[in-house]
Amino acid sequence: GFARIDSARQARTGIPEVIYTPGKTKEQVRQIAERMYKSGIDILATRASEEVFMHVREVVPEVTFNKMARTIVFHHHSNREETKDYIAIVAAGTSDLPVAEEAAETARFLGNKVERIYDVGVAGIHRLFSKIEGIREARVIIVVAGMEGALPSVVGGLVNKPVIAVPTSVGYGANLGGITALLAMLNSCAAGISVVNIDNGFGAACQASLINQLK
Amino acid sequence: GFARIDSARQARTGIPEVIYTPGKTKEQVRQIAERMYKSGIDILATRASEEVFMHVREVVPEVTFNKMARTIVFHHHSNREETKDYIAIVAAGTSDLPVAEEAAETARFLGNKVERIYDVGVAGIHRLFSKIEGIREARVIIVVAGMEGALPSVVGGLVNKPVIAVPTSVGYGANLGGITALLAMLNSCAAGISVVNIDNGFGAACQASLINQLK
Amino acid sequence: GFARIDSARQARTGIPEVIYTPGKTKEQVRQIAERMYKSGIDILATRASEEVFMHVREVVPEVTFNKMARTIVFHHHSNREETKDYIAIVAAGTSDLPVAEEAAETARFLGNKVERIYDVGVAGIHRLFSKIEGIREARVIIVVAGMEGALPSVVGGLVNKPVIAVPTSVGYGANLGGITALLAMLNSCAAGISVVNIDNGFGAACQASLINQLK
Amino acid sequence: GFARIDSARQARTGIPEVIYTPGKTKEQVRQIAERMYKSGIDILATRASEEVFMHVREVVPEVTFNKMARTIVFHHHSNREETKDYIAIVAAGTSDLPVAEEAAETARFLGNKVERIYDVGVAGIHRLFSKIEGIREARVIIVVAGMEGALPSVVGGLVNKPVIAVPTSVGYGANLGGITALLAMLNSCAAGISVVNIDNGFGAACQASLINQLK
Amino acid sequence: GFARIDSARQARTGIPEVIYTPGKTKEQVRQIAERMYKSGIDILATRASEEVFMHVREVVPEVTFNKMARTIVFHHHSNREETKDYIAIVAAGTSDLPVAEEAAETARFLGNKVERIYDVGVAGIHRLFSKIEGIREARVIIVVAGMEGALPSVVGGLVNKPVIAVPTSVGYGANLGGITALLAMLNSCAAGISVVNIDNGFGAACQASLINQLK
Amino acid sequence: GFARIDSARQARTGIPEVIYTPGKTKEQVRQIAERMYKSGIDILATRASEEVFMHVREVVPEVTFNKMARTIVFHHHSNREETKDYIAIVAAGTSDLPVAEEAAETARFLGNKVERIYDVGVAGIHRLFSKIEGIREARVIIVVAGMEGALPSVVGGLVNKPVIAVPTSVGYGANLGGITALLAMLNSCAAGISVVNIDNGFGAACQASLINQLK
Amino acid sequence: GFARIDSARQARTGIPEVIYTPGKTKEQVRQIAERMYKSGIDILATRASEEVFMHVREVVPEVTFNKMARTIVFHHHSNREETKDYIAIVAAGTSDLPVAEEAAETARFLGNKVERIYDVGVAGIHRLFSKIEGIREARVIIVVAGMEGALPSVVGGLVNKPVIAVPTSVGYGANLGGITALLAMLNSCAAGISVVNIDNGFGAACQASLINQLK
Amino acid sequence: GFARIDSARQARTGIPEVIYTPGKTKEQVRQIAERMYKSGIDILATRASEEVFMHVREVVPEVTFNKMARTIVFHHHSNREETKDYIAIVAAGTSDLPVAEEAAETARFLGNKVERIYDVGVAGIHRLFSKIEGIREARVIIVVAGMEGALPSVVGGLVNKPVIAVPTSVGYGANLGGITALLAMLNSCAAGISVVNIDNGFGAACQASLINQLK
Ligand SMILES: Nc1ncnc2c1ncn2[C@@H]1O[C@H](COP(=O)(O)O)[C@@H](O)[C@H]1O
Ligand SMILES: Nc1ncnc2c1ncn2[C@@H]1O[C@H](COP(=O)(O)O)[C@@H](O)[C@H]1O
Ligand SMILES: Nc1ncnc2c1ncn2[C@@H]1O[C@H](COP(=O)(O)O)[C@@H](O)[C@H]1O
Ligand SMILES: Nc1ncnc2c1ncn2[C@@H]1O[C@H](COP(=O)(O)O)[C@@H](O)[C@H]1O
Ligand SMILES: [Mg+2]
Ligand SMILES: [Mg+2]
Ligand SMILES: [Mg+2]
Ligand SMILES: [Mg+2]
Ligand SMILES: [Mg+2]
Ligand SMILES: [Mg+2]
Ligand SMILES: [Mg+2]
Ligand SMILES: [Mg+2]
Repeated sequence: GFARIDSARQARTGIPEVIYTPGKTKEQVRQIAERMYKSGIDILATRASEEVFMHVREVVPEVTFNKMARTIVFHHHSNREETKDYIAIVAAGTSDLPVAEEAAETARFLGNKVERIYDVGVAGIHRLFSKIEGIREARVIIVVAGMEGALPSVVGGLVNKPVIAVPTSVGYGANLGGITALLAMLNSCAAGISVVNIDNGFGAACQASLINQLK
Repeated sequence: GFARIDSARQARTGIPEVIYTPGKTKEQVRQIAERMYKSGIDILATRASEEVFMHVREVVPEVTFNKMARTIVFHHHSNREETKDYIAIVAAGTSDLPVAEEAAETARFLGNKVERIYDVGVAGIHRLFSKIEGIREARVIIVVAGMEGALPSVVGGLVNKPVIAVPTSVGYGANLGGITALLAMLNSCAAGISVVNIDNGFGAACQASLINQLK
Repeated sequence: GFARIDSARQARTGIPEVIYTPGKTKEQVRQIAERMYKSGIDILATRASEEVFMHVREVVPEVTFNKMARTIVFHHHSNREETKDYIAIVAAGTSDLPVAEEAAETARFLGNKVERIYDVGVAGIHRLFSKIEGIREARVIIVVAGMEGALPSVVGGLVNKPVIAVPTSVGYGANLGGITALLAMLNSCAAGISVVNIDNGFGAACQASLINQLK
Repeated sequence: GFARIDSARQARTGIPEVIYTPGKTKEQVRQIAERMYKSGIDILATRASEEVFMHVREVVPEVTFNKMARTIVFHHHSNREETKDYIAIVAAGTSDLPVAEEAAETARFLGNKVERIYDVGVAGIHRLFSKIEGIREARVIIVVAGMEGALPSVVGGLVNKPVIAVPTSVGYGANLGGITALLAMLNSCAAGISVVNIDNGFGAACQASLINQLK
Repeated sequence: GFARIDSARQARTGIPEVIYTPGKTKEQVRQIAERMYKSGIDILATRASEEVFMHVREVVPEVTFNKMARTIVFHHHSNREETKDYIAIVAAGTSDLPVAEEAAETARFLGNKVERIYDVGVAGIHRLFSKIEGIREARVIIVVAGMEGALPSVVGGLVNKPVIAVPTSVGYGANLGGITALLAMLNSCAAGISVVNIDNGFGAACQASLINQLK
Repeated sequence: GFARIDSARQARTGIPEVIYTPGKTKEQVRQIAERMYKSGIDILATRASEEVFMHVREVVPEVTFNKMARTIVFHHHSNREETKDYIAIVAAGTSDLPVAEEAAETARFLGNKVERIYDVGVAGIHRLFSKIEGIREARVIIVVAGMEGALPSVVGGLVNKPVIAVPTSVGYGANLGGITALLAMLNSCAAGISVVNIDNGFGAACQASLINQLK
Repeated sequence: GFARIDSARQARTGIPEVIYTPGKTKEQVRQIAERMYKSGIDILATRASEEVFMHVREVVPEVTFNKMARTIVFHHHSNREETKDYIAIVAAGTSDLPVAEEAAETARFLGNKVERIYDVGVAGIHRLFSKIEGIREARVIIVVAGMEGALPSVVGGLVNKPVIAVPTSVGYGANLGGITALLAMLNSCAAGISVVNIDNGFGAACQASLINQLK
Repeated sequence: GFARIDSARQARTGIPEVIYTPGKTKEQVRQIAERMYKSGIDILATRASEEVFMHVREVVPEVTFNKMARTIVFHHHSNREETKDYIAIVAAGTSDLPVAEEAAETARFLGNKVERIYDVGVAGIHRLFSKIEGIREARVIIVVAGMEGALPSVVGGLVNKPVIAVPTSVGYGANLGGITALLAMLNSCAAGISVVNIDNGFGAACQASLINQLK
């Protein structure tokens, strides 16, 4: 086959194989999904279009699609356990939601309880303060922001939990497709923050899950 | 002479000629200062070393030096008027002070009342809130910050006055000599903010003075 | 709802909430516009297509569209007051007009009188000189230019009012999508100039309005 | 005083104030250290020269200096508790050691047990494999590498613990002062990795400590 | 004609003229192919679409198309000799296959035996180890990888043959269209590696062929 | 010897060999100068320090040094002819003079009449207008400017002669060591302008000389 | 009207107004062309599509279109004079021809005799040598090249005429849309070369025409 | 010890451990050299200063120093075998010689016969042609060039041997510390060329040696 499923990856790294759909034809995604389905492996596909979802549904009928997150998900067992502690997913603006939702869906797929705190960007900082308790009580915090990428610094200065910052490509001009937010987050004056690639809600959730599930 | 003093500049642009010392020998700076002194023109020299100051003092005895701001100043008349309204100069961290002080000294040289609000960076946002009233009452606000350059966005979301953001070259690695703070400020999600060159406290004060002195 | 209208923003920052249409579906824009309409809030939507305008018109019949500025505007009261002082909007070339018009429409939406001085780029500098009086008499000046971004420096050297420079993405090759004009404006040899993001006519008008309406 | 010690920071963020020495005079560092000493606060100063250490020792006699890590450390109580779980600090080459040691010293200052696994760069991958068990048993892993920044990807594919990658400025030419390693780490094909600023051993240790001390 | 076929190039440089299809109309490609066909010259066209292939087939009926490699190939003599030694083509992930296949097809066109070792990226390094013998026995090795571009360093540290690294544009965000992988490969800590342009499977195969056919 | 003098270069390209001193020891420069002196070749060395000049003077006693231009010059015949038409060298600010003088000295070395028009930067455009006739009557114009690099566009719009623009590294922050001025000049909205490397007064003078001496 | 025709530009700068079509609607181009036609002004429009040409032809029937050059041209008088000396236009590869042809058409529009020397790239340098005499006899030389941009250096080392280098955006990957060729040309080791913006055949021809028509 | 000598590296990769001196103290270099000396391992140290050499000589008396190449070399056996085929090392200009010599010394250390062809840059292409036979007869060719990096393309178009291009940091301004030459070489229009890091003469020689010693 054109792709091998690394079924030992879950055991080795704590994160199973996940289908990254860009650059794959819809036939290829369907075929991989089908093979995972038949092998008893749970399915997560990211950056998926509705069209790809339709294709996968033909072979995995119970599969679900989250349009904003652009994720396709299927679990073999519906009564999965969820962590007691939760991952807080904090997002600055409406345009950052696809990335925040990719993180949320990935985190939940990996068995984590998730709390969403959205639309709390720094231009109206009172919105963040009204939600700060729910953020402080999380075990780990994902902060998603585009434009000047300032939100992780403010959050990082208010909590004593690890913060994973996700820059988004939201903006224009000197935003350079998310590079500005990425650089800003790497230079945060608050301690306890690390950063993942632009728009990489998936990657942030993987690390948050490893942290949240530490014994 | 090697440099012509554009004495009409004050009338034409509201800002007189100012001596930018880098790239000039100490003899050249002294000579320009002496000529201005004799022509009855007030003197401001920026980015000056203590050594240059010593040299100028030989010909303009009453001249003063601000070590942190790196400015040399002399006024022919000691009883100058100051504006009623003030320019607030807000700075994020200790390392940003040379730039903030360059702005403060320039603003005062241009006849403005100045209020300094320092060490209020976003990693401890409570420090900013405790000072917000003094910032709100200014006529125009200069915000100086390095690293991720987030402070102007937070300030801009809390006030209804024009904010001039000054990125500083404070930081290392992905800070790129201040480019990161500059890009962040240009992408601010708060409205009413404009930006000047990296470390350009002088330029911010010039524009703030023009605004503060509008009738 | 998917978006919250921050109705206190006008009071807090002097600039009300404005709809930035890119990244929103036409249904979303219509719904936000309808809610603002029913709440008695004036409407400004920027970067709007004609198609989005059609959609909004179904729920806000009196809404108007400026094709070049790409703005949708609606005021509840037609007899609004306008400032006595005006904002001058100076543009270099024909291709810069969409950005200049975005600034003009935003400035007028915020209650300012506006004067347009267009097609006065530095390659034929006599065109600028023939209009300089009208520029000098403004309270604040927005200068819009692409390519080498030289116009703000020339204007800044001729006036004693604050100049807000807007780089545009007009050009090709080493223009780097407007980065060249942005960098040039940040390095202006004239004092009293500050800069906003590439193509950000909206942001320039917000700051100009705050300045123009200072008491 | 020129600097305020934010003594609530430890409680609020889990990380106390730390003295970043670059840009401060040796007198300033000594004065801050003295004040902390007298207030019963433990001292960590990073990026310190031997000369600065000498200065601090005049006022805090028991202070210690780690030349490679460039850290100055003082604890009021010698019988501090250490975590049971440890942070693994993995470094690629000899030139990366100053950054790895900054991370190690910071982690220990924050109360963590630390294991060092050095000189296991990817050009001789067998060296990594001979140490992999000690890495796998850590609670969280810091991976320090310069040049092509490949080590975090290899480690990330072999463990089920969170990996914090630290790019270093080690290299020349197309290494761009560490930007190459930074970009590579942000694009890691292994899941569960996040990244901090170039040479930021301190920042990596802060986040690792927050993770390691999660209940 | 619009293009001259440099028929002496094979003799002079060891590599014949090859048709690079981007920027050429399908009529132009067909015409060049026809001329080569009639002149007894073997045909290789790269970066070709299926549509272009259809067009060429009208004039060169026996021509073949490799969809993944995007190559069009025709040989006048079917019983061509192949080298005894082979070129190993090692690829990191599924998305890198078009570039790897362009290299493979080019190498075979130039008369070389080729061995493909695919899907052995560093995130699951055991996959590489299980194939290492076949790589070591090659005369020259092409390593194709995107994202963080780490694979050539690992391979280079395990073999005593020249390694030609090909960065691919696979990835997003801070991947910068392949620049990240390119920079990483140029900074490889393993000796004996050189690099070609992003996605340039063709160029890697040309150099590998010159090496493989050295007497 | 360590360097070969390409004595045919003058005949072939219109420009003789010239000594670029950076990266050469003072002994090497002296030795090359001596050889040229003895072979009857005129000497121009650029980017030279006073110390190098002292060294050369030991073997070529009549050699002269221009401190600002950093040039060392020697002609075998004092009664050289000079062109009737002149090259105008226009410079924006005082800090651009070393580059302007390098151009002037090179142009004169190559036998051209030169007119200097200095300190006419765009922030005080009236200074340029008062000198425009002398610029218009030149056969070719070199325009030297740093910071925003706007001067060539203004000059180019006022003359019907070829303009060669020289960006300088004068400025700080977003000036990027002259890249900003370079990019601006490449994007000039005026036609008839071409550009040389940053600080390359020598290169501009070479091309200007070829143009000025066209029959 | 939306655009003013600067009819004095020819007299002032030696280059008349020319229609740059990108960013203009086909109606706008037709209207400008019609106005120029009726005012007795010759017409050149660059970067034009066939569709725009059709539109212009409705109002200027004798107008001609050069598909490769993407130029629309009309002269009121067919018996125009042409210069005796010619401009040589040298191009490296087939893909550079649109830019070379834009230069050729512009140069001819401005009244110059033109000689084309195409497909002489440095990978087969013998092709250049077979044409060198025709290049040497030109009065000024335009050299067009993409990829590594090496051709101007080779030409510049062989001729004693001014060389204007035009980088093209031909290439992929590390070619960065022409930036690579641009940088290479600016760093040419040959003297007497200057550079214009990427793909700017028009600009090169304007300067070449000013040079070619110098008395 | 602070560094482990990977004595199996020669067997595994064909290249032994080599001492890269930057970032090591002179004591560390001496200590490593002494250990290698005592273990019967041949010594090569690169980027070495004369001072470091003095230090090493105290413990390895027969060691030699090449000042231009900045290499320290010691062989246990003087009657080493040398390859029959040679590596040609072609360099553009005098300033490129340190890099070319680093390549030459490394190649000879690895047992290769070497031919140097220096000062044959493209600005005087006749110099290259006069030496082309010696280049063609090499088994593999290293081409070293700075500035516009054009030489590898010209050489590559004239030979049927693998070419390894080494960009140097020679140049200024838009040369960007060698990035310009690097990018140019990666975009070479000649086939059969690959590239190593800026100034990496060592790396080029390692790969050339692997190629030259292929059976
Ligand atoms: N949205 C995403 N962003 C980054 N990496 C992803 C994403 N989704 C999946 N992946 C990773 O990509 C791998 C699949 O890559 P591939 O072998 O090319 O299908 C998965 O196992 C994940 O580790
Ligand atoms: N610190 C500063 N940053 C930026 N511009 C400055 C600064 N200080 C002075 N200037 C400007 O530089 C001009 C002097 O430039 P120059 O003619 O080179 O001496 C002054 O008139 C100011 O407009
Ligand atoms: N995929 C490719 N990538 C890079 N260069 C190529 C590729 N395919 C062909 N070429 C080169 O491009 C040349 C053809 O260029 P052209 O004259 O524009 O058709 C061929 O002779 C090859 O050397
Ligand atoms: N292909 C081209 N590249 C660069 N500049 C051009 C080109 N064609 C026309 N121009 C210039 O653009 C001007 C027209 O600009 P505009 O006022 O926007 O129509 C002309 O007068 C020319 O100076
Ligand atoms: Mg909102
Ligand atoms: Mg502080
Ligand atoms: Mg116009
Ligand atoms: Mg080692
Ligand atoms: Mg895979
Ligand atoms: Mg001046
Ligand atoms: Mg060709
Ligand atoms: Mg030479």
